[in-house]
Amino acid sequence: MSELAFQDQGAVKHCHGCGADNDRGLQVKSFWDGDEAVASWRAQPHHCGGTKDNLNGGIIASLIDCHSLNLAIAQAYRSEQRRIGSAPRIGYVTASINVSYLKPAPIRELIELRARINVA
Amino acid sequence: MSELAFQDQGAVKHCHGCGADNDRGLQVKSFWDGDEAVASWRAQPHHCGGTKDNLNGGIIASLIDCHSLNLAIAQAYRSEQRRIGSAPRIGYVTASINVSYLKPAPIRELIELRARINVA
Repeated sequence: MSELAFQDQGAVKHCHGCGADNDRGLQVKSFWDGDEAVASWRAQPHHCGGTKDNLNGGIIASLIDCHSLNLAIAQAYRSEQRRIGSAPRIGYVTASINVSYLKPAPIRELIELRARINVA
Repeated sequence: MSELAFQDQGAVKHCHGCGADNDRGLQVKSFWDGDEAVASWRAQPHHCGGTKDNLNGGIIASLIDCHSLNLAIAQAYRSEQRRIGSAPRIGYVTASINVSYLKPAPIRELIELRARINVA
């Protein structure tokens, strides 16, 4: 893994999903693990969904969004053999998100996010 | 419109997206407007996305999720001519969500959510 999270190297520090300076946000921290990105994240009780024991689906979508988008940006820098955040800056936005909720996500367990890029 | 929001009639008061008692959540409030559900929602600055001027995509997904799910529940009670939250309780969960982000959503503007049920 890199020493610094993708989000701590880039310019976007305010994002609700992953901004390091957003103390009311989710603060996702993503790292390289080979060609994949991994993140570990721990919920707070107010992140619950339909039951207090399970993580909210919107939060799950937010985690996936910010983790995956930061992977896309990190990959773009990596493919140019450049440090994340170096000039000229590379920025992407999410065009669409599609999440299937396969089973409840227990809120007290550490969440592991793992993403990889599939080029169509 | 009904006097009480769907979320204020049901049993789920803790949900991050729509729970009335979750003071760190989004507190979506949905109402009937004919056969549609409408909600007005105002963001706080920490709900921003890639820029501070625009709403975070995960928050948008959360709003759509909780607004739509509450419409599904409200419709189920309505079809049985029962008050939301009356026994026996009706509860649904979101199986999947698919959001296309067509253009930036300015964070300072009042967000209007409008949903209707399409039965396949």
